[in-house]
Amino acid sequence: MKLYTYFRSSASYRVRIALALKGLVHESVFVNLPKAEHQSGEYRAVNPQALVPSLEDGGHVLIQSLAIMEYLDEAYPAPPIMPPAPLDRAYVRAVSQIVACEIHPLNNLRTLKHIRAAYKLDDEGVNAWYRHWIAAGLTSLESYLIAAGRTGLYAFGDMVTVADCCIVPQIFNAKRFDCELAPYPRVMRVFEQCMKLAAFESTQPSRQPDAV
Amino acid sequence: MKLYTYFRSSASYRVRIALALKGLVHESVFVNLPKAEHQSGEYRAVNPQALVPSLEDGGHVLIQSLAIMEYLDEAYPAPPIMPPAPLDRAYVRAVSQIVACEIHPLNNLRTLKHIRAAYKLDDEGVNAWYRHWIAAGLTSLESYLIAAGRTGLYAFGDMVTVADCCIVPQIFNAKRFDCELAPYPRVMRVFEQCMKLAAFESTQPSRQPDAV
Repeated sequence: MKLYTYFRSSASYRVRIALALKGLVHESVFVNLPKAEHQSGEYRAVNPQALVPSLEDGGHVLIQSLAIMEYLDEAYPAPPIMPPAPLDRAYVRAVSQIVACEIHPLNNLRTLKHIRAAYKLDDEGVNAWYRHWIAAGLTSLESYLIAAGRTGLYAFGDMVTVADCCIVPQIFNAKRFDCELAPYPRVMRVFEQCMKLAAFESTQPSRQPDAV
Repeated sequence: MKLYTYFRSSASYRVRIALALKGLVHESVFVNLPKAEHQSGEYRAVNPQALVPSLEDGGHVLIQSLAIMEYLDEAYPAPPIMPPAPLDRAYVRAVSQIVACEIHPLNNLRTLKHIRAAYKLDDEGVNAWYRHWIAAGLTSLESYLIAAGRTGLYAFGDMVTVADCCIVPQIFNAKRFDCELAPYPRVMRVFEQCMKLAAFESTQPSRQPDAV
């Protein structure tokens, strides 16, 4: 198994956590995004979308972090990172998608590069955009976690799931951009509990061999 | 079963297609986004994220369109809209997520409203943003469909899946903004085949009772 990853990519971090939770040994291939290595012909031959992560398993290449995590749970079921009941699965997926469909796409590297160039923004302008979507997204996530009433130690009771694999990397990104996190105590409690686990701690950006 | 929907919301259209494919009878509650009905206290009590769609089933509220479609497939398995094998499921989810995580979040109503206000854009400025991300996203989708080599009549061979439920509404949006679609023949072939099916045709925006 081979993971194409970049230390700061939060989508890559999601999959690193899932692999660690399942104890799946894999090789890491480091793809440096600021150096545009993801846009090389060599990487495009692996992933025509030219994004990280990609996972190679048994000669098959999988893309899109949520799809990869669900694949891992189906192909390597123990320990599970998705609950068995349809309503519970829908909740875990909804939390994951609030992060993956509502927050992260607006704040990833390619979007920030585009607004900087298109609207001639300086660092402060880019940060304002970033913080706007973090605040909107985490407000929404906090409200949903409270309204659904399903959190325990983690986002789904006391079971570690794909939802936690999405929340933790998003909080790492928010911290990097100095976003205020005090307004989201439920989200932050989940984050702090997760960070007590080796699968989250050992796979964090600063612990990666490609971290600079 | 009760679907909270808006005719132009492509995430709502995805779920309308899935419900139609499964022949699931439901009541529709129309939430007018331009009139900000989704931000009312009444709707926030249903969905604290204040986005459409939401699906009520047996007293439970489900949110996030991809999570809702997978729930429908698990709770009402016939006819299936996900294939059974893990690698095939990963492909269908990857295609769905290229649309739902890479294209749609950058181009939905709340994002367009934000860039218009934050960067003082006129209609042409907003359209330029829209077309940029459609071109990037559909180029990526086209490349992936070709590289994966799994398309038939539909995105996954001759089986209608969640991937088709995501592609078709995105093309409707792109047409509404007069995006050029000729560069994406594989995507457009899937779109045209899907539109021959009643489940896609009858649920399209212009056929909805709330269409104006």
